[in-house]
Amino acid sequence: MDATVGQLAARCGGEVHGDAGRLITRVDSLSKADPDTITFFADRTPPRELETAQAGAILIERGRLEELSEPQRNTCTLITVDDALDAFILLLTDERPRRNRPTIGLSHHAVIADSARIGEGTNVYPGAFVSEDVVIGTNCDVFPGAYIGPGCRLADNVTIHPGVVLYPDIEIGHRCIIHAGTAIGADGFGYRFRNGCHERIPHLGHVHIEDDVEIGACSTIDRGAVHATVIGEGSKIDNLVNVAHNCEIGKHNAFAAQVGFAGSCNTGDYVLAGGQAGIADHVNVGTGASLGAGSGFTRNVPAGETWFGSPARPGEEAAKMLIAMTRLPDMRSQLRKLDKQVQQLTAQMNQLTALDDAA
Amino acid sequence: MDATVGQLAARCGGEVHGDAGRLITRVDSLSKADPDTITFFADRTPPRELETAQAGAILIERGRLEELSEPQRNTCTLITVDDALDAFILLLTDERPRRNRPTIGLSHHAVIADSARIGEGTNVYPGAFVSEDVVIGTNCDVFPGAYIGPGCRLADNVTIHPGVVLYPDIEIGHRCIIHAGTAIGADGFGYRFRNGCHERIPHLGHVHIEDDVEIGACSTIDRGAVHATVIGEGSKIDNLVNVAHNCEIGKHNAFAAQVGFAGSCNTGDYVLAGGQAGIADHVNVGTGASLGAGSGFTRNVPAGETWFGSPARPGEEAAKMLIAMTRLPDMRSQLRKLDKQVQQLTAQMNQLTALDDAA
Amino acid sequence: MDATVGQLAARCGGEVHGDAGRLITRVDSLSKADPDTITFFADRTPPRELETAQAGAILIERGRLEELSEPQRNTCTLITVDDALDAFILLLTDERPRRNRPTIGLSHHAVIADSARIGEGTNVYPGAFVSEDVVIGTNCDVFPGAYIGPGCRLADNVTIHPGVVLYPDIEIGHRCIIHAGTAIGADGFGYRFRNGCHERIPHLGHVHIEDDVEIGACSTIDRGAVHATVIGEGSKIDNLVNVAHNCEIGKHNAFAAQVGFAGSCNTGDYVLAGGQAGIADHVNVGTGASLGAGSGFTRNVPAGETWFGSPARPGEEAAKMLIAMTRLPDMRSQLRKLDKQVQQLTAQMNQLTALDDAA
Repeated sequence: MDATVGQLAARCGGEVHGDAGRLITRVDSLSKADPDTITFFADRTPPRELETAQAGAILIERGRLEELSEPQRNTCTLITVDDALDAFILLLTDERPRRNRPTIGLSHHAVIADSARIGEGTNVYPGAFVSEDVVIGTNCDVFPGAYIGPGCRLADNVTIHPGVVLYPDIEIGHRCIIHAGTAIGADGFGYRFRNGCHERIPHLGHVHIEDDVEIGACSTIDRGAVHATVIGEGSKIDNLVNVAHNCEIGKHNAFAAQVGFAGSCNTGDYVLAGGQAGIADHVNVGTGASLGAGSGFTRNVPAGETWFGSPARPGEEAAKMLIAMTRLPDMRSQLRKLDKQVQQLTAQMNQLTALDDAA
Repeated sequence: MDATVGQLAARCGGEVHGDAGRLITRVDSLSKADPDTITFFADRTPPRELETAQAGAILIERGRLEELSEPQRNTCTLITVDDALDAFILLLTDERPRRNRPTIGLSHHAVIADSARIGEGTNVYPGAFVSEDVVIGTNCDVFPGAYIGPGCRLADNVTIHPGVVLYPDIEIGHRCIIHAGTAIGADGFGYRFRNGCHERIPHLGHVHIEDDVEIGACSTIDRGAVHATVIGEGSKIDNLVNVAHNCEIGKHNAFAAQVGFAGSCNTGDYVLAGGQAGIADHVNVGTGASLGAGSGFTRNVPAGETWFGSPARPGEEAAKMLIAMTRLPDMRSQLRKLDKQVQQLTAQMNQLTALDDAA
Repeated sequence: MDATVGQLAARCGGEVHGDAGRLITRVDSLSKADPDTITFFADRTPPRELETAQAGAILIERGRLEELSEPQRNTCTLITVDDALDAFILLLTDERPRRNRPTIGLSHHAVIADSARIGEGTNVYPGAFVSEDVVIGTNCDVFPGAYIGPGCRLADNVTIHPGVVLYPDIEIGHRCIIHAGTAIGADGFGYRFRNGCHERIPHLGHVHIEDDVEIGACSTIDRGAVHATVIGEGSKIDNLVNVAHNCEIGKHNAFAAQVGFAGSCNTGDYVLAGGQAGIADHVNVGTGASLGAGSGFTRNVPAGETWFGSPARPGEEAAKMLIAMTRLPDMRSQLRKLDKQVQQLTAQMNQLTALDDAA
């Protein structure tokens, strides 16, 4: 890209505060910006970071201009816009245009069962496998090495990345994105112990992924024993996450990488889970609750609360426990010191009361 | 399904206690049952849950009838059977018959080396890859996208789900099920540090999966350096589990999702590991031991014991530590209060003894 | 193998101390050795283990001979060599020769875009998919079911195991090994919350894997939002590891299985991370730092330090906290006992001072 600050401001509907004629050659994030760079000022970045910024121009929300001190405003050329991130993404996409989605159609090098019904504009890449009784909507992408088991139903605009495995009878909603290597619908980890063996309990349920869900790479969502395991509308799941059989995940949840839900958990809407959080079976998590990274959950978490720790406790209590834990070595030596003092006091007291008695 | 309670009882060899003529239209679990539903009463469900049950009919073990109070027995129609879960699965399978296993044989769209020997009744799906010197038994399924490396040996009735990767020379026992995306036999994570680099140590061992093992999706079992990494007969491993090089896992173990065993661990038989448990290298776990979810194991665990916590300790000790931890903030304030009292007592004592001395 | 100790010593340039005529039939590790076995004495094995060794012959470094007591030297025949592990691997490889790398070339059963450029001696196996604008160097292996996205660039001698997925525009350095099922370059887990939804932030960066990196099976490395996510030269990553968007991992790092790095972390060179360690976003880890297994990192870790615990603290502090934690139940009962004593002392004191006052 070679453009003046003025041209870039025009491109994203912004106003220039500074040198509109300055030449910009690249788009980059604030920390990596140099005087040839246009960048943006993120919501959570503190204004003082502007003071050391090396950028040629910075996109900033109109409303934030007032937060800045005079020197902060003058460090470099600003472009005020409605939404700095949107404007930044627009310019970044101009610089690095995305590849066009190719028109593959139904590849002759894919295996597609005769009974499968596939909508207009859907690409089934070479090396994909679409089983009998599958229904796929319009404008989907089924990438190489993806396996769509018998009876699966995919709505429209679904993306199934390479190597994804959908076991039989899985339902995937509109606009879902399933990343590489993820397995949806394997039998749940359910056995009964009989005659000295773990005997598999048949899993006759399925998995229902609602609309606008995105699931990261190498994650696993098991099928239910009787019902569907459900991932609610708009929920986003990161890489290497496990959601076990019978879980019912609410809408607009977001689970970071390596989170694990054991069987039959329920979550409300807008639940957040930090990376590596582990939730025991049959735990209910209320709407808007936030589950701390690396924490272990064995009790129900009420709506709106933030819990963390292992075992997890409500935020304030968990924070007190954490602080106390870091003080533990001090507490231990204080305890030893007190003990000594108390034993001495006791000895003195015994002597005194003996004297008194004697007196 | 549309059947009377009497017909359903006959189907599973049970006796009706209540209205045998009642019409049932669906099979479901207790929590989702309505008056048209037949459900079952699980081993661990407390009898009082019967009092609020909405089910049209409930399968229950003959022996449990005596546990019920008069009102509990009369809430809804009961069908007494030998085994409630078995009967429930029978009816559920009637309602939702499983797909027949298709006869694929050796697909022309699979790649099968000339030197591979494959038994009768085995399906090798399109898109599967069977390398040279592979031996596969009878009635196996090798699904699309599965890769069977050179020299692998699969016994009879083995299921290799889509996208499974077996590195060279892996042995898989009878009736094993390997779920989608799992990788067996990658080189162990073994390096020596030399000349400023981590230099790979060749891994010349293999992996031996004994009979009746089931391994979940996206799990990883690494090959041994010199010997086999072994998964003992009848053991069940969930999704996203790692078993590192040289581990020797006993028979009938069960490991929940995201468990990780570091290198050269040994377990006895009937070991259980809760989700996300982590076991350090060279740890031995005795027969029948139980490893708590989310716990970290750095010491050998004796047979029959339940350990948990991070670092894990024997159950009773770990429980005391946990309780004490939740009391930590209280302990801290109690300690502060005591300290104040002791300092005051000491001051008073000094005064008193000074008085005494003076006297 | 059937060879005398003398012949084996000659093979690996060692000298025999003991019976050079003894017949050896197998190579195995110390713990599994019997009198027909040749084995080796590892760096970290304590010399007293020699006293109970059953081996027919043991490879040992020349320099270590002096560490041994007279009886230790005479327990079994020793072969002194420059490097015991190297010699052991040489003999083990003689016994179990590795399969030759086959000459596949560009398989007709692979899908290779016309615009892809592929170097001499590279194997693209049946069932692999190479997209448009891909560049692959010489002597690479792209195994069945691997997917190489548009615009990826692989240097020379790269091994892409079965089922690996490289999203578009990934760069892989010389001699890298990517194990089965690993996904590199999925969109980072980055959303902005707007209108009640998690809205995807486009990820326009890529992933750069430098030379001599090895990545285990079923691991995930996400692409950056603006820049590359970087894995530095010579770094080794185990199975089921997640490295999130924008991370910049230094050279010669080693991360054990199930480690998770959240977004925008930086590490120096020679950083070690134990299994299941979790590192929060934007954490910096200094060169040579060591991150404890199963620990949770929320603060920057200075160069050269060993931290562990959850939350992780510097080694000595963390060790003190751990010890204090195991003493917590004792501390609690001691505290209760002290409290009782102090209350009694206070009562006695009040009585005494009342007497004094009265007096």
